[in-house]
Amino acid sequence: MKPVEGGVTAPKGFRAAGIHCGIRKNKTKKDLALIVSDCDANVAAVYTQNVVKGAPNRVTKEHMKAGNCRAILCNSGIANTCETDGVEKAEQMAAAAAQLLGVKTTDVAVASTGVIGQPLPVDVIAAGLPQLVGELSPQGGHDAAVAIMTTDTYPKEAAAEFTVGGKTARIGAIAKGSGMINPNMATMLSFITSDCAISSAMLDRALREVVGVTYNCLVIDGDTSTNDMVILLANGQAQNAEITGAGPDYEAFEAALLSVCRSIVKMLAADGEGATKYLECHIRGCRDTASGRVLAKSVMSSSLVKTAFFGADANWGRILCALGYSGVDFDPQKVNVSFHSAAGDILVCQNGGSVEFSEELAKRILSEKEITLTIEMHEGEAEAVAYGCDLTYDYVKINGDYRT
Amino acid sequence: MKPVEGGVTAPKGFRAAGIHCGIRKNKTKKDLALIVSDCDANVAAVYTQNVVKGAPNRVTKEHMKAGNCRAILCNSGIANTCETDGVEKAEQMAAAAAQLLGVKTTDVAVASTGVIGQPLPVDVIAAGLPQLVGELSPQGGHDAAVAIMTTDTYPKEAAAEFTVGGKTARIGAIAKGSGMINPNMATMLSFITSDCAISSAMLDRALREVVGVTYNCLVIDGDTSTNDMVILLANGQAQNAEITGAGPDYEAFEAALLSVCRSIVKMLAADGEGATKYLECHIRGCRDTASGRVLAKSVMSSSLVKTAFFGADANWGRILCALGYSGVDFDPQKVNVSFHSAAGDILVCQNGGSVEFSEELAKRILSEKEITLTIEMHEGEAEAVAYGCDLTYDYVKINGDYRT
Repeated sequence: MKPVEGGVTAPKGFRAAGIHCGIRKNKTKKDLALIVSDCDANVAAVYTQNVVKGAPNRVTKEHMKAGNCRAILCNSGIANTCETDGVEKAEQMAAAAAQLLGVKTTDVAVASTGVIGQPLPVDVIAAGLPQLVGELSPQGGHDAAVAIMTTDTYPKEAAAEFTVGGKTARIGAIAKGSGMINPNMATMLSFITSDCAISSAMLDRALREVVGVTYNCLVIDGDTSTNDMVILLANGQAQNAEITGAGPDYEAFEAALLSVCRSIVKMLAADGEGATKYLECHIRGCRDTASGRVLAKSVMSSSLVKTAFFGADANWGRILCALGYSGVDFDPQKVNVSFHSAAGDILVCQNGGSVEFSEELAKRILSEKEITLTIEMHEGEAEAVAYGCDLTYDYVKINGDYRT
Repeated sequence: MKPVEGGVTAPKGFRAAGIHCGIRKNKTKKDLALIVSDCDANVAAVYTQNVVKGAPNRVTKEHMKAGNCRAILCNSGIANTCETDGVEKAEQMAAAAAQLLGVKTTDVAVASTGVIGQPLPVDVIAAGLPQLVGELSPQGGHDAAVAIMTTDTYPKEAAAEFTVGGKTARIGAIAKGSGMINPNMATMLSFITSDCAISSAMLDRALREVVGVTYNCLVIDGDTSTNDMVILLANGQAQNAEITGAGPDYEAFEAALLSVCRSIVKMLAADGEGATKYLECHIRGCRDTASGRVLAKSVMSSSLVKTAFFGADANWGRILCALGYSGVDFDPQKVNVSFHSAAGDILVCQNGGSVEFSEELAKRILSEKEITLTIEMHEGEAEAVAYGCDLTYDYVKINGDYRT
């Protein structure tokens, strides 16, 4: 397996495009993306667990039930959520794209991201669609990644190549993140393509396995969005023998998917709203991975921990505090905490208590852009990782007046 | 019932003092408080549910088991938490105070608040105790309130007078709050005194009832502290017939306790770290009070909701989002949201969707210092309230470098 360029258009048989259609006032910001598979693709998807669900989520979930997908249409700027005619508008988006592409409406997935509770100008989207379809290209993955951005400061794309059944296959992905990010059994918007031949059942299994340890272990601000969605398409153009069960082929596919999704999640964390630092929290020696994830996410969700990292302050007491209110039981007197970055390693807490360390070295380590917290629980053999970022003035600035 | 001055020394038979003993470098900041009952007092207490518990919490819980208390000794600056000799030091604090006061060590409650994971200079506390005991006074409640402050910008005290069994009784309280505030079945530090005669069992019942709807409905930053503690003393000096069961006397006591604790909680919320606005979230028409509290606390915990209030932005979609991920099931299409302040009332969301409203009026309403969010669920008859504040640049500033 190796990383490759091209995002969602890296795999064979996918084209994409991204344009400014007019949802956003800023004409230099693309706001409409389309990803198309040239042939039928098996599809797996996971959606937000928020009780308040975006209209596009409901429509896409219904459309994807048959397990087939030809296109994903996504706008940024307005979330099409909490509007009485939202479902109707999401259906209109899908129907308009389906007509231009000559596919069934139920083969089109739709997604929206942006402000909740504002009316979606579906006529503006419909008017932009002919241009969008005209610009579809096997090199269009990047434009699509740009078009789905909201407060993201850069587009998120990743792709990998791997061998399966003697054939070369690829997986590519794009995503948007930044704020309202605390995925729960689903995620912010992420669209993943593959030319691997794999059954719907195995595709679904791979997606759920990988989402559990990547997107679902990401925390920006603890707010689980109403519009979270990950869609994975596989169109079989790599011409490998279809993967229909466990075995080396499935493992190769899952490993490549994990690699691509982990890359995307790291980009999402590093580009969290207002973030100046990328944080990884590794829990080692926990009883099981489920409780390890709860511990890691509790630490990555703590406003006090996040602000301490912003200030490059080795305030490990806040980390113990966040472990302690996670809901997981453990013996605090067995916990060690250390920090790692390009500037070095430092142990700051041993057996749940203070240990002498150089504040100067700690400051240097915590002043780097990428920091790993390692927490040794000494309770068992399992491990877990959560991904996050610091809490900064800019997070407050960005969200103090997002709508205007 | 009427509010009165005097905080914890408002009830008969209580003296208090607060001094600078030297835990803090800033000599103008008091850092040691003592509250003494002139006779034995029944005691009820609730403590943090964090797995990582401060040493003073463990010692006080043990001491208070017999149901009797004569004194509360509390320092600010260092939390005496996550230190191997923390319990020993907390015991030393209690013993030193007990000796000077001529009471049993187990009749002394101790508490500490401040940085976690730094050694408590118990010798400095012991050296300051004679002065502290010498300054004990029936007017000393305010000094004690000042001495327990950390990043609080003003002391929190409240007291009320009520009639019970034909006698006049009082309840007084102080508290410290500001950060690491998300009480769970207990709270930040709050010390409450009363001269009412009431049995230990009824005292405990009243405290648990009132804490459930006051301290436990307060959110500053979602971090449940390791050192949360509420202690309620009742010394019987009002000479009413002891309250030993339900009835009008118990109801009068509980109503006065609720009034005092609600006042304290409002002060704690308004003075949350970096806060510029006091927020109350009222859930109406929910299925039961328990689910109502979960909904209200979810809204008050959301970083996105809190930053929107900082920016006076009527971004009601974030409120629906936070209700949606609270874990409580409901029909989003029945939800109304309105804002209220001294500048007026405004409905911003009806039946889970947008409604036309004046952005200009909304801005004026949200620019006030005290704002009430009212959320009508239309699911039942119950109500609940949570208390909180906005998330600001100053929260990030204060917590980016708290230790130094």
